[in-house]
Amino acid sequence: MSNSTAGKVIKCKAAVAWEAGKPLVIEEVEVAPPQKHEVRLKILFTALCHTDVYFWEAKGQNPLFPRIFGHEAGGIVESVGEGVTELQPGDHVLPVFTGECKECAHCKSEESNMCDLLRINTDRGTMLNDGQTRFSKDGKPIYHFVGTSTFSEYTVSHVGSVAKINPAAPLDKVCVLSCGICTGFGATVNVAKPKKGSSVAIFGLGAVGLAAAEGARVSGASRIIGVDLNSNRFEEAKKFGVNEFVNPKDHNKPVQEVIAEMTNGGVDRSVECTGSIQAMISAFECVHDGWGVAVLVGVPNKDDAFKTHPMNFLNERTLKGTFYGNYKPRTDLPCVVEKYMNKEMELDKFITHSVPFSEINKAFEYMLAGQGIRCIIRMEH
Amino acid sequence: MSNSTAGKVIKCKAAVAWEAGKPLVIEEVEVAPPQKHEVRLKILFTALCHTDVYFWEAKGQNPLFPRIFGHEAGGIVESVGEGVTELQPGDHVLPVFTGECKECAHCKSEESNMCDLLRINTDRGTMLNDGQTRFSKDGKPIYHFVGTSTFSEYTVSHVGSVAKINPAAPLDKVCVLSCGICTGFGATVNVAKPKKGSSVAIFGLGAVGLAAAEGARVSGASRIIGVDLNSNRFEEAKKFGVNEFVNPKDHNKPVQEVIAEMTNGGVDRSVECTGSIQAMISAFECVHDGWGVAVLVGVPNKDDAFKTHPMNFLNERTLKGTFYGNYKPRTDLPCVVEKYMNKEMELDKFITHSVPFSEINKAFEYMLAGQGIRCIIRMEH
Ligand SMILES: NC(=O)c1ccc[n+]([C@@H]2O[C@H](COP(=O)([O-])OP(=O)(O)OC[C@H]3O[C@@H](n4cnc5c(N)ncnc54)[C@H](O)[C@@H]3O)[C@@H](O)[C@H]2O)c1
Ligand SMILES: NC(=O)c1ccc[n+]([C@@H]2O[C@H](COP(=O)([O-])OP(=O)(O)OC[C@H]3O[C@@H](n4cnc5c(N)ncnc54)[C@H](O)[C@@H]3O)[C@@H](O)[C@H]2O)c1
Ligand SMILES: [Zn+2]
Ligand SMILES: [Zn+2]
Ligand SMILES: [Zn+2]
Ligand SMILES: [Zn+2]
Repeated sequence: MSNSTAGKVIKCKAAVAWEAGKPLVIEEVEVAPPQKHEVRLKILFTALCHTDVYFWEAKGQNPLFPRIFGHEAGGIVESVGEGVTELQPGDHVLPVFTGECKECAHCKSEESNMCDLLRINTDRGTMLNDGQTRFSKDGKPIYHFVGTSTFSEYTVSHVGSVAKINPAAPLDKVCVLSCGICTGFGATVNVAKPKKGSSVAIFGLGAVGLAAAEGARVSGASRIIGVDLNSNRFEEAKKFGVNEFVNPKDHNKPVQEVIAEMTNGGVDRSVECTGSIQAMISAFECVHDGWGVAVLVGVPNKDDAFKTHPMNFLNERTLKGTFYGNYKPRTDLPCVVEKYMNKEMELDKFITHSVPFSEINKAFEYMLAGQGIRCIIRMEH
Repeated sequence: MSNSTAGKVIKCKAAVAWEAGKPLVIEEVEVAPPQKHEVRLKILFTALCHTDVYFWEAKGQNPLFPRIFGHEAGGIVESVGEGVTELQPGDHVLPVFTGECKECAHCKSEESNMCDLLRINTDRGTMLNDGQTRFSKDGKPIYHFVGTSTFSEYTVSHVGSVAKINPAAPLDKVCVLSCGICTGFGATVNVAKPKKGSSVAIFGLGAVGLAAAEGARVSGASRIIGVDLNSNRFEEAKKFGVNEFVNPKDHNKPVQEVIAEMTNGGVDRSVECTGSIQAMISAFECVHDGWGVAVLVGVPNKDDAFKTHPMNFLNERTLKGTFYGNYKPRTDLPCVVEKYMNKEMELDKFITHSVPFSEINKAFEYMLAGQGIRCIIRMEH
């Protein structure tokens, strides 16, 4: 341990959610040193994803407060705990909400990224090693969120939840690969796999949906139909290859019927990026029988039920879901960063806003108002 | 047209279902000549599939009577209608409930066998060409069933619903490829695609489910778990590779939980062959997260709803459905028959009973009592 803070508690600023739905408060918190298989990260840039908002609102989800949210970010390793050999202080990293232990059946499977040890767990607010939090204020614990809690100048993560990337990559851009963009892009290219010339419907044109559209565009899909309740999304979505638009509010029949009519029976692929159970059902029912594949990405409420007639499956439709676009964070993310570096992947167009850490609540306002795509929060140490 | 009956009405025996759930009655009926793109078949052997029973019982399905059921059969072309060039009198054929026009988007797609023109339609009781029936008794029409109606000495089908096969193939055996065995076997090998060494759960150990198990066995699955409410099925199922058994009635928790415990989180693949909506949900929920694939085969009631938590999809499970095991009847069935001829596929062990046509109601009794696998009905002209 070469730096001066290693092994010590760090006092720094964090945006604490004290109560459901109440603006975050920038507080001075204490961040304990990393324990066994943990690393402490200095966060440089973070962004807001809708998943943070759901658990902050805690309407359809279990409340757990006080909590430090944030899971889309880029930073630098400050210090490492016992047994960490893969990372060292100074490494540039992206923390990821679904980790990769590299040892479980999922990590060893070519198909899955649902690591048994480190997969997303939105109800856990503590670290695996000791079941405690590394954050506290005045001696009282503050809960973690999905193993990342990036709305803090410093945070502690399990080493398996941190991807080491090319240090030349600009963290203020590649931080969006830490969740939304990989999730949407991967949902299309790794899971839905549209063929050249095919039709793809994208439900929800936020960052995740637009990344899914971008995946369809680079796959050579010829019709990319964007579906959103907010028509303001449509102009911007054109930059991501979306070339037809449907606002369910403009029609007096279910949107799956509208899409079936537009496409002579249904789209070849659909990707749902809204979190709305109604959109999930529509996204499934709008794919063509015989070969259609629908992919669910949005995070549902805890009491939602997916309901459809089983004949919709029998008629040879496929339904799948994915976390993080089926990317394995430590194995695959460094390569995705390289794609950006080689100009094979565009990220800048996803970033429409930027605020200093002190104005983090503005990022929440933009998302709730459906304004822009991703808002970068600059930690400005 | 070389034979004496071509172009004329044929009087012959048929087993008519006059009312829902009442024993069939062997009647003398009139079978009109085939019209444009139709063929008239002399049925030699037919078998009973559970789908016939559902529409005969008409409990969860629309009633349509009087009707001639039957769709698993082998026969010989008696005469052909206008425009039929692919078949001629004397050809050995298997009629199939889902046809293949060879011209629509589905027939041209590599993935689908859901022909736009000739796919299964259980509510239609007439021929496509003129919307009339070819069967009548005393001038009153008798409805067809899924374009096959094989419980008759002679029947009329669309040419696209008839597969021409090797005339050396014994029709009293290969007739079971006309529905159940191809359906189950194909559901596994064409759709679920288990890998060598994997675990597969089969729900329902009737002919369809045992054919699905056979598909798992030849795919090299190491654990084949049979699930049935009728434990009498288990002994026979061993011949089809089933090496573990679960009767949901023996447990006081959902069978998907029992299977998850047996398999450290779930099976790699499952194939549902029961028609029970509860089994469909269990078959989906018992596959492993990350990579599990479930395939629905059973025909649901018309008012059933498939219901599950969307998180079960998000956790990277896949759900699909299939008719006829995704085989294209005219393209693929002749090759499957060859597999039987080359001893690459076993059929004899599926055939446990045989009755003369006059005793067709016994076949219904066996199925309702869960006795045996397939019962062949010998037309004995
Ligand atoms: N599976 C994963 O790994 C993963 C990762 C990140 C985000 N997510 C989820 O993806 C979803 C999208 O995230 P985001 O950050 O892009 O959110 P966002 O708020 O930026 O975008 C969501 C869009 O969906 C639209 N929408 C909402 N309900 C709709 C409906 N019924 N029909 C059509 N459009 C509708 C909204 O108007 C909005 O434009 C969220 O549910 C989020 O939790 C999942
Ligand atoms: N998709 C297709 O193309 C296609 C083709 C043929 C048959 N089918 C359907 O496949 C199903 C099976 O047909 P079959 O002829 O083999 O029927 P069958 O009656 O011979 O076998 C069905 C088996 O399922 C068992 N079963 C019923 N409910 C169950 C439950 N909840 N859990 C576990 N086991 C249960 C029964 O005890 C029986 O052994 C039927 O629904 C039939 O309509 C579909
Ligand atoms: Zn996210
Ligand atoms: Zn793992
Ligand atoms: Zn059948
Ligand atoms: Zn066709």
